[in-house]
Amino acid sequence: MPTSEQDFLRVIDCHFPERGEHVLLGRGDDCAVLDPGKPGPLCVSTDLFVEGAHFRRSYFSPADIGHKALAAAASDLAGMGATPLGFALSLMLPDDVSDQFLDEMLEGMAALSKRLELPLIGGDLSRGPALALDVVVFGKPGPWGRLLKRCQAKPGDALLLLGDIGLARAGLLELESKGCCVLQEWPAAIMAHLRPEPLITEGLALAQITTPEGPAITGLMDVSDGLARDLPRFLGAHGAEITLQREDLHPEVVSYFASHSEDPLEAALLGGEDYALLACADRKRLPIVLAVMPQVKVIGRVTAEPGVRLQNGQVLREGFDHFAGREAD
Amino acid sequence: MPTSEQDFLRVIDCHFPERGEHVLLGRGDDCAVLDPGKPGPLCVSTDLFVEGAHFRRSYFSPADIGHKALAAAASDLAGMGATPLGFALSLMLPDDVSDQFLDEMLEGMAALSKRLELPLIGGDLSRGPALALDVVVFGKPGPWGRLLKRCQAKPGDALLLLGDIGLARAGLLELESKGCCVLQEWPAAIMAHLRPEPLITEGLALAQITTPEGPAITGLMDVSDGLARDLPRFLGAHGAEITLQREDLHPEVVSYFASHSEDPLEAALLGGEDYALLACADRKRLPIVLAVMPQVKVIGRVTAEPGVRLQNGQVLREGFDHFAGREAD
Repeated sequence: MPTSEQDFLRVIDCHFPERGEHVLLGRGDDCAVLDPGKPGPLCVSTDLFVEGAHFRRSYFSPADIGHKALAAAASDLAGMGATPLGFALSLMLPDDVSDQFLDEMLEGMAALSKRLELPLIGGDLSRGPALALDVVVFGKPGPWGRLLKRCQAKPGDALLLLGDIGLARAGLLELESKGCCVLQEWPAAIMAHLRPEPLITEGLALAQITTPEGPAITGLMDVSDGLARDLPRFLGAHGAEITLQREDLHPEVVSYFASHSEDPLEAALLGGEDYALLACADRKRLPIVLAVMPQVKVIGRVTAEPGVRLQNGQVLREGFDHFAGREAD
Repeated sequence: MPTSEQDFLRVIDCHFPERGEHVLLGRGDDCAVLDPGKPGPLCVSTDLFVEGAHFRRSYFSPADIGHKALAAAASDLAGMGATPLGFALSLMLPDDVSDQFLDEMLEGMAALSKRLELPLIGGDLSRGPALALDVVVFGKPGPWGRLLKRCQAKPGDALLLLGDIGLARAGLLELESKGCCVLQEWPAAIMAHLRPEPLITEGLALAQITTPEGPAITGLMDVSDGLARDLPRFLGAHGAEITLQREDLHPEVVSYFASHSEDPLEAALLGGEDYALLACADRKRLPIVLAVMPQVKVIGRVTAEPGVRLQNGQVLREGFDHFAGREAD
């Protein structure tokens, strides 16, 4: 463990050499100074990743921790259809973190940072009783100048999903029951929990799709607390009828929950830490969306009356709350 | 303690009703969206405030904790001569924090936020083993368009100080020795530690002073780790001769350290958490600075040779490192 802030900054500089084109003044002054380029809005989101609440060192490798802390924060940029500018990291380190652990954790974070073109612009460091990473991400609209908010859905709109739901939940349950990381049986589920991939490119692509009548996608959010909990936040005053089928789920979601006597569809809707994207589109513009991005799944439609109903008439119960505990029913 | 994130957001909304003119999209979406107004640079700084490392609940009131977490972060904006835009708060709450405690802590933070015109734009929340607040502040240059960096000092420049050094250190030592807050004997010292005031107005005023030959102040930083540690960071490759006198110190600094058999001047230079401002100015432009801001103290001059020397020929030893512990000698 580095014994001074200066030592720590040397480790940071070694892992995060990039300054980024939008960083006028980087680490080492009172503030970092960002230049968003063209005048225009700047997106900001913070994500707190705390040992015990969000991860365990027993089954997260140091690199997994670094990766996921940044991935979870970057997913919020994806949920706005924004393009990354940079991030800041506040790190709380307990005494039992070794130099090697820190090095591997930063390496996992740096690899994703490089891939997302999301340079580290600043941060802070403190000792503390647990390992905690607070990641602040900055982004801006893509070249087409749009950011996609929640609560934009109109009755009749199609609800769209990008990415898998329930897969990270299966991974979490498997890791919690085994207490360590065994990849053989449910590799996709376990990787979805340990190494989620923020859908930045997909968010940007969704924001870009235009039709002769205007933009195809009118609302977007990232699904991080499970669809059951996030859907009402997305819909605002409206409701939805969900047509999601078992066939829409990842095969590991179906087999994992079926083999644990749970309904795969319900488990997928409860989900949590999916980092999938939820969008809405005008019905008439839907064919263009599906033509441009065939991996998009249509999972239902927006209704004027509030509440979320499944095809069997069941009303959706809520999902995942990091604050109240791993699950809130 | 709120039992869900929604409950918590209601408490937050109650304390921080302001949106701020630069907030296009506030709390509750994937990202907050800031509009810096005119195209131009954006300052970002993070400050992690952790129980045990930075404060104790035994002598910090909840409102003190909320105030100081924000004050310490805002001081970094002061150190750039920047004007506040907004802040984000990531909060790690242990189970023993009551609703009332949280309420008072947010109230202390909200009062300073209102006074500094620094609206809360977003944040995150998690349970955790200790109380920790990570504050991210955003700012922009004042109307004159300048931001003041470190490492700008030229040999011959005057070194200037705004605010008291050593006062918060006396307060910390007194609070640590008493274990609780007794204001009678050293009220200024104790308030300097519990309730530091970020010198935002002063930083902006320094950035604004112009002379017929150009801006008067060429470099600025906030002194948060003690002058002994921060001076070398400010000077870069250069050194300094310090002419600071006992008469320049707050009377409580002189009497506190003298009564504890410590040299007040040395204790003040070691300092820590002073949140004073350190600046440099061309000698010829100094009279204008002192005419505009008579509270500025001239504490020395920049030298070409590195190292910091006191008037008695002593070479300054380094100060305060939150990471290595409360003091690093």
